[in-house]
Amino acid sequence: MLIVMKADATELQIEAVLRVIEELGFKPHPMPGANRTAIGITGNQGSVDPTHFETLPGVAEAIRVSKPYKLITLELRPEKTIVRVGDAAIGGDELAIIAGPCAIESRSQAFAVAEAVRRSGARFFRGGAYKPRTSPYAFQGLGEEGLKILAEIRETYGLKIVTEALDEAGVDLVERYADVIQIGARSMQNFSLLRRAGRSSLPVLLKRGLSATLDEWLLAAEYIMAEGNYQVVLCERGIRTFAQHTRNTLDLAAVPAVRRISHLPVIVDPSHGTGKNFMVTPLARAGVAVGADGLIIEVHEQPDHALCDGAQALTLEQYEQLVSDVRAIHEVIAPAAVS
Amino acid sequence: MLIVMKADATELQIEAVLRVIEELGFKPHPMPGANRTAIGITGNQGSVDPTHFETLPGVAEAIRVSKPYKLITLELRPEKTIVRVGDAAIGGDELAIIAGPCAIESRSQAFAVAEAVRRSGARFFRGGAYKPRTSPYAFQGLGEEGLKILAEIRETYGLKIVTEALDEAGVDLVERYADVIQIGARSMQNFSLLRRAGRSSLPVLLKRGLSATLDEWLLAAEYIMAEGNYQVVLCERGIRTFAQHTRNTLDLAAVPAVRRISHLPVIVDPSHGTGKNFMVTPLARAGVAVGADGLIIEVHEQPDHALCDGAQALTLEQYEQLVSDVRAIHEVIAPAAVS
Amino acid sequence: MLIVMKADATELQIEAVLRVIEELGFKPHPMPGANRTAIGITGNQGSVDPTHFETLPGVAEAIRVSKPYKLITLELRPEKTIVRVGDAAIGGDELAIIAGPCAIESRSQAFAVAEAVRRSGARFFRGGAYKPRTSPYAFQGLGEEGLKILAEIRETYGLKIVTEALDEAGVDLVERYADVIQIGARSMQNFSLLRRAGRSSLPVLLKRGLSATLDEWLLAAEYIMAEGNYQVVLCERGIRTFAQHTRNTLDLAAVPAVRRISHLPVIVDPSHGTGKNFMVTPLARAGVAVGADGLIIEVHEQPDHALCDGAQALTLEQYEQLVSDVRAIHEVIAPAAVS
Amino acid sequence: MLIVMKADATELQIEAVLRVIEELGFKPHPMPGANRTAIGITGNQGSVDPTHFETLPGVAEAIRVSKPYKLITLELRPEKTIVRVGDAAIGGDELAIIAGPCAIESRSQAFAVAEAVRRSGARFFRGGAYKPRTSPYAFQGLGEEGLKILAEIRETYGLKIVTEALDEAGVDLVERYADVIQIGARSMQNFSLLRRAGRSSLPVLLKRGLSATLDEWLLAAEYIMAEGNYQVVLCERGIRTFAQHTRNTLDLAAVPAVRRISHLPVIVDPSHGTGKNFMVTPLARAGVAVGADGLIIEVHEQPDHALCDGAQALTLEQYEQLVSDVRAIHEVIAPAAVS
Repeated sequence: MLIVMKADATELQIEAVLRVIEELGFKPHPMPGANRTAIGITGNQGSVDPTHFETLPGVAEAIRVSKPYKLITLELRPEKTIVRVGDAAIGGDELAIIAGPCAIESRSQAFAVAEAVRRSGARFFRGGAYKPRTSPYAFQGLGEEGLKILAEIRETYGLKIVTEALDEAGVDLVERYADVIQIGARSMQNFSLLRRAGRSSLPVLLKRGLSATLDEWLLAAEYIMAEGNYQVVLCERGIRTFAQHTRNTLDLAAVPAVRRISHLPVIVDPSHGTGKNFMVTPLARAGVAVGADGLIIEVHEQPDHALCDGAQALTLEQYEQLVSDVRAIHEVIAPAAVS
Repeated sequence: MLIVMKADATELQIEAVLRVIEELGFKPHPMPGANRTAIGITGNQGSVDPTHFETLPGVAEAIRVSKPYKLITLELRPEKTIVRVGDAAIGGDELAIIAGPCAIESRSQAFAVAEAVRRSGARFFRGGAYKPRTSPYAFQGLGEEGLKILAEIRETYGLKIVTEALDEAGVDLVERYADVIQIGARSMQNFSLLRRAGRSSLPVLLKRGLSATLDEWLLAAEYIMAEGNYQVVLCERGIRTFAQHTRNTLDLAAVPAVRRISHLPVIVDPSHGTGKNFMVTPLARAGVAVGADGLIIEVHEQPDHALCDGAQALTLEQYEQLVSDVRAIHEVIAPAAVS
Repeated sequence: MLIVMKADATELQIEAVLRVIEELGFKPHPMPGANRTAIGITGNQGSVDPTHFETLPGVAEAIRVSKPYKLITLELRPEKTIVRVGDAAIGGDELAIIAGPCAIESRSQAFAVAEAVRRSGARFFRGGAYKPRTSPYAFQGLGEEGLKILAEIRETYGLKIVTEALDEAGVDLVERYADVIQIGARSMQNFSLLRRAGRSSLPVLLKRGLSATLDEWLLAAEYIMAEGNYQVVLCERGIRTFAQHTRNTLDLAAVPAVRRISHLPVIVDPSHGTGKNFMVTPLARAGVAVGADGLIIEVHEQPDHALCDGAQALTLEQYEQLVSDVRAIHEVIAPAAVS
Repeated sequence: MLIVMKADATELQIEAVLRVIEELGFKPHPMPGANRTAIGITGNQGSVDPTHFETLPGVAEAIRVSKPYKLITLELRPEKTIVRVGDAAIGGDELAIIAGPCAIESRSQAFAVAEAVRRSGARFFRGGAYKPRTSPYAFQGLGEEGLKILAEIRETYGLKIVTEALDEAGVDLVERYADVIQIGARSMQNFSLLRRAGRSSLPVLLKRGLSATLDEWLLAAEYIMAEGNYQVVLCERGIRTFAQHTRNTLDLAAVPAVRRISHLPVIVDPSHGTGKNFMVTPLARAGVAVGADGLIIEVHEQPDHALCDGAQALTLEQYEQLVSDVRAIHEVIAPAAVS
C-alpha cells in the first residue's frame, strides 16, 4: 500500500496519516518529494484496505502495490534520491568517485593512495579492513586496526570513508570509524546483515550479488529500507557468466534498468567488474556514459605488491588519467543521463 | 602442509607431531584413516618448512600442498568421510534421505509430514524455522517456535533434525534444538557463519551457492573444517543459468567432480534443483544414479497451501513413490558408485 | 491450427480434410495415433478460421494453437514417437545406445571400435566424417572417405550409422552413406540446414545448442517437422554455464521438461555433456535414471591418441562397463519413466 | 608460423618468401603494415621449420605461433585494420554508424528510415532480407526482393549496405546487391558459411555468438581470414546470461579484450545487446565510451508496427538524439580510445 498525499497537504495531515498507519499495527515510511509526500506501508500480512486512508484529509490516493517492492520505487518517490554524506553526495549533479585500495594493508600504503585520491578531487575513500576471501588461508584484512587507519585518513584528508561490514558485529565497528557501510556482493542476500544495516544511521552501499537478478538486488535494498534507512546506493560490479576474458561480466544495462524502476542512485565498479587493470579505465568511461551516478575504483601505490586483487588495481598515474577521462564524459552526457 | 604418518605410527608419535605443530604456532588437524593417520596444518602464512617434520618418529612424509584447500582433500583422507548423527549416517552404505516441508508452518502440518517421512524409513527430517526470503515481506518462518516443533518431532519419531541457520545467533538456537546445521545456498560465502558452524559440535550440511564454482564450494567447506569441525556434508542444489524451464539447473556432474577431490559426502537436492513438482522424482533418481550419498526432498501434506515453495513440494504419495524408486536404483548401482 | 479427428474417422474422411487444407493453400501434417489421428496445419500467415473444418465429417475438434510450436506437441500426438531405423528404434521400450569415436580417423580405428559396439549389443554407431572445429587449423574430418568407412561398418556389423551434416551439401552425402542425420549443437539454429534435413527421408538427431532455451530447441525440431520429416530425436548434450569443472553443464532436467510438452524421443550425450572421461559413466547412469530414451557415447580404442575430444572418450573396457550399468538401471526404472 | 620482414625489405624479397611458402605446400598471408610486412602461414599440419625462412634475404624473424589464432593477431599486424567500403570506413578516425530496420518490410518503410539515416550523417544502412527466426512460422524476410530494395537505397542515398547472409547461397546474393556481408550471432560457428565469406571480395561483419567465448569469436574471424579475406569487422551484440532485465547481456569488456589481441575493428550493437528501446541510447553511449569503432542500430519509422524486434527499435527522433550523443562522446574520448 502506498499513500500519496496532495501537493498542498499540511504537516499535520501527514502526521495524522502516519498515526493511523501505526494504530493499524503497520510501519509508515514517509518520503517527502519536490511536489508531494508519499508514504509507504510495510509490516502488513496480506493487503491493506485502502478505505482506511482514502477519506483522510490531505490524501490524494491510496494505491495497492502489486510489485514485490514498494520503498525503492519511483511510484513512492519520483525524484532521484541524493545520498548525502556530510558535504559530499551520491546521486546529485556531481559524479561521485570512490577510490582506494582493495584492502588496507598498512598506514603508509593507505596514506600514499589517499593522498592521490584527495588530489584527484574525489570525495570518497574506499579500503577493506575485513575482507571476504574465498579461501580461509588468504589475507583477511587488518580488522579494527584497518578501521583506525581509515579514520585517520578521514581526519587528515577530509575524505568520506566507505568500508565493508561482513556481519552484524562488523556494522557496529564500521559505524564507529567510517561514513558509508559497504555490503559486498557475497553478502547481498545476508538478510540479517541487511536488516542490521537498515537500523544504522549511516548510508549503505549495496553491491549486486554475482548472480542476482534485478529484482533480487532491488529487494535486498528494500530489506534495508523496510527497517527505516533510506540512504541506499546501488552498485553494479559484474555478474558471473560463461565469459572468461574478464573476472565478471559488467552488466552496464543494469544502470538504465534500475533508473526505470527506482529512485536510488547507482554507481559502477569497473575494477571488480573486469578484474583486469587494462580494462578498468575503458569500462569506467562506459559506466559514466551509460549514466551512472559514480564509480568505485581500486587504486594501489604498488599493484604488483598488493595483498589482494592486485591484477585489477590501477597505479596512481592510471587513476589520475581515469578521473580526467570520466569527468570529460560526465560533462558531455550530464543532461542526457538526467533525462 | 600435510604430514602423513606411517601405518604403524603409535599414538604417542602422533601426539608428538601435533605438539610440534602447535609449538610452531600452527593448528594441527589429525584425520585418522583406515590405514594411516594424516595431519593437516593450517594457520601458517606462507609455506612451512618440511624439515621440521620429516625426521620425527612415525612420520612417513611431509607434503607441501599447492592447492587452495587441504582438509577436504583425498590426500589428507583417502577414505570417504561418514558423517554420523546418532545412529544414522550420511556417506555410508545406506542411502541417506532427508525429507520434510520447506518451512515449519504449524505443529499439525509438521507432524503430518513427519509421520510419512518416518513411515518411508528415512532417518532425517528437514524443515525451516528461519527462512531466507528474497522479499522482506514474505513469510520468514516461525523462528524459535518452529525449532520447538522440530525438537518435538525428534522426540516423537526419532528422526534427526536438519534445519537452517541464517546467522551466528541462529547457530546457537539450532544447536539447542536440532541435529544438523544447514547452511543455505545464499549463505555459502557468509564467512562469519561458516566459522561459527566450524566451532559447533553438530554436523553441517553445506549447500552449494547459486553461482559457486567447485573450488569456491570446497573452500567454503574448508572454512568450516579449518575451525575444527570435520563433519561436513556437501549438497548440490542447482546453479543459476540462462535456462528457464527450471528454477535452477541441477549440476549432477558436481557429484563425481567432488568425489575426485574430496572425502566429504555429497547429497543432491532435486526440489530446489528443479523447482517443479513433476521433475523432482526423475531428478532424484538421477541423483542416486550419479552416485550421491543421499537426497534432500521437500514434502508437504498440502503443497497447494504451502507458505513457501509449494510448486516444488511433493505430496505424501509422490514422496513414497520417490523413495521406492530411488532405493531400487541405489541397490543396482551401489557397487558402481563406490568404485 | 490443429484438427483432431474422431476415433472412428475413416481414411476417406481424413483424406478429405487434408484436401481442404491444401486447397486453402496450407500444408497438412497428419499424425496417426493409437486412438485417433490429429492433423497439424502450417504455412498459414495469421490464424486459420476453424469453421472451415468443424463441420467436415469425422472431425472431432479444430483447436487454435497459441504456443509457438504445433507439430512437436503432445496435443498433436499424445503417444511418444518411436523413430524407427530399419529394425532398430529410438523411443521404444529398448534403451537406444549410439556409440563410436568422435571422428572417423582411419579404417582400422573405426572397425576396432565398431567391433566393441556391436559386441555390447548397441544398435547404432556414431562417428564424424565432417567435424565442426573451433579452429580452422584443427583436424576437420576425413570427409567422404570417412563416410565410406562408415558405410562399410554398416555392411559388416549391421550397425545403423549416425553422422553429422554441417551444411546442405553434407546432407546429400549423409543420405548416400548413413542412416541418421546428426545436427550438431553449433548448427541447431542453422535454419537452412534444418529445412534441408526436413526434406530428407532419414531420421534426424537434433542436438541442443550450447545456449538454447527449451523453446528454441523445440522450435528447431519444429523447423524440421514443418518440412514434413517427423522422425526427429532430441539430444541433450550440456549447456554453457559459468561452471568450469566440466566442459558443459549437462541439464538432465531437460528430459522431463521435453516429455511434458513433446512426443519426440530424447537421448542424452554424457560425453560432450561433461567432457571428462571419469564423469561419462556416472552421468550416463543418471541420464537413463532420469528417463532418457537412449545415450550417445564417445568410445575410442586409444583415447590418448584420438584426433579429437580424446579427454572424454571411453576406452572399450569402460564402455562395456557403462552399458552393463545403464542396462541394469533401465530395467529398474522402465515402468516409472514411462509413466 | 609468422614471418616478419625487415623494415627495408624489397617487394622482390617479399615475393620470394611467398614463393617458398607456396612451394612447401602452405598458404601465405602477407599483411603490409606501416613499418614492415608480416606474412602468416596457414595450411600446415604441425609446426613449420623456421630454418626454411630465417636465412632468406629481407627476413627479420620467423616466429612460431603457439596461440590458436594467427591472422587476427597484433603480432601479425600491429596497426589496427581499417575496413574500407568505397569512400566509407570502419576502424579509422571516424565513428562508423550502421543504422536501419531489423528487416526490410517494404520499399516505403525502408526509404523512410534510409532518409533519416542519411540525414544523420551515417554512412551505412542495415536491413535484413533473410531473417534467422527462432520459429518457422515467423516472418522470414522478403528475400531477394528485399535485397533489391537495399540496392535501390544504395543508389539513391549513397549509403553502404550491410545485410545478413544465412547460408552459402545467401552470400552469392548479398555479393550481387550489397556492400558488407553480415554473419549473425546464430551463424558465428557455421563454418561452411565462414569459409564462403572468406572467399568473397566483400568485407564481413561478424557478430559474436550468444554463448561465444572471446577465443571462439576470434577463431571464427580466423576462419574467414584463413581463406584470404582480411576485411573483417567484429561486432559485440550481447551474450546469454541468467539476467532477465535485458534480452542479452551486452559485454562491453569484449571491446578492450579484442583490442589487446587483434588488429580487427570492433563495433557494438546496443539494439540486440539490450532488446529494449529505452536502453539503446545509454548503451550506445557506453559502447562509444569503451572505445568501439562504431555502432549498429535498429531504427524503424513505426516501431510499434515492426514485423520483427519492434521492442528494441528506435524511432527516427530517438535515433537522431543517439547520433548526437555518441558523436559528442567520441570527440571527447577519441585520443584515449586510440591509446
